[in-house]
Amino acid sequence: MLSTTSRTTLGRKKHRAVTDRSALHAVLDEGLICHLGIVRDGAPIVLPTGYGRDGDTLYLHGSTGASSLRTASQDLDVCVTVTLLDGIVYSRSVNNHSMNYRSAVIFGKAALVTDAAAKTHGLRVLTDHLAPGSWEHAREVNAKEFAAVSVLALDLAEASVKMRAEGPDDEPEDLEADKAWAGVLPVRTVFGAPEPSEDLSPGWTTPPHVTGRAAT
Amino acid sequence: MLSTTSRTTLGRKKHRAVTDRSALHAVLDEGLICHLGIVRDGAPIVLPTGYGRDGDTLYLHGSTGASSLRTASQDLDVCVTVTLLDGIVYSRSVNNHSMNYRSAVIFGKAALVTDAAAKTHGLRVLTDHLAPGSWEHAREVNAKEFAAVSVLALDLAEASVKMRAEGPDDEPEDLEADKAWAGVLPVRTVFGAPEPSEDLSPGWTTPPHVTGRAAT
Repeated sequence: MLSTTSRTTLGRKKHRAVTDRSALHAVLDEGLICHLGIVRDGAPIVLPTGYGRDGDTLYLHGSTGASSLRTASQDLDVCVTVTLLDGIVYSRSVNNHSMNYRSAVIFGKAALVTDAAAKTHGLRVLTDHLAPGSWEHAREVNAKEFAAVSVLALDLAEASVKMRAEGPDDEPEDLEADKAWAGVLPVRTVFGAPEPSEDLSPGWTTPPHVTGRAAT
Repeated sequence: MLSTTSRTTLGRKKHRAVTDRSALHAVLDEGLICHLGIVRDGAPIVLPTGYGRDGDTLYLHGSTGASSLRTASQDLDVCVTVTLLDGIVYSRSVNNHSMNYRSAVIFGKAALVTDAAAKTHGLRVLTDHLAPGSWEHAREVNAKEFAAVSVLALDLAEASVKMRAEGPDDEPEDLEADKAWAGVLPVRTVFGAPEPSEDLSPGWTTPPHVTGRAAT
């Protein structure tokens, strides 16, 4: 079960809250980017950032939105949100139009990973999420790069998942009137055909860890 | 030109900043959801939210994350971020893996729209963004619904756009070594085939404002 705090207990439409940890993991594993929120000078900043999950730890890449992440690593509160949009819900009334989605919201303090082995592990988790197979295929991180990059870790202890995955929810009078179409227009995130780099030397074919992903 | 403030001036990779207003509008018009950041009790909260743009005003729907938006309407600072993920960039080294994306970040104070005509306009802008054609097709918002919904407006005065839209950026020694594939795996958001509601009466065909969107 996910923890419930005043922040993760939904104020409305509680039936849309999902409280098992596997649902949280599923949303995080399917998403490609998160939106990281921090507070600086009293105001919110929200930036798109790469991430990866291992167990109940979320890793964030420190080279994205660098100054914000340096702020985030100073033991400040962060909020990380991952949203998967699944559909546009057309109802018989303008007011009942909606979206189908799955979203995970995590609150906590992001900690800079300093231990070398733990940082290497974090980098691997981040790579495996962004580009599965690249850790084995591409040139490993060298000492200079390792020193320059930063990795943050965030515990998934305080998190919530919310979702809507249903058809239109129309008023009885609108069903009766039967004056408008209703349904769902699915929204999907898909991979296109891989585009080899223009500077790739002749003889390379796109490797299976890339082509296999494109086929999904 | 977009304004530049300490918050919208990028701390690194300044060449990725885009400073014309048409680029900001393009990102906002293509996105489907935004991530709204607010500060509550000193900590950040980031929630996915529907939005719509008219000129240099962004409208947010007050029924999403209701309590957070009530907080946001109390003249508090907000940050609204819209991110379009365009590709996974595979480079010859793990460290140079990246993403192609376009993102818009807007800072400001969200104001509750109270004037009836302005609120109706805001609802129309929101509907036209979420489901173009539905304002004309579906049943209009009635008085009870109009009173229950809230609309927030945010000026686009303080905003920045950042993007990456290129191939791998590899080190000379990795190009020379030629030991790994490099390229881009495109990521796209697409609409699937419309799914008519199960309770739709016989005789309905999916209207052009829905089918036309699915075809794009």
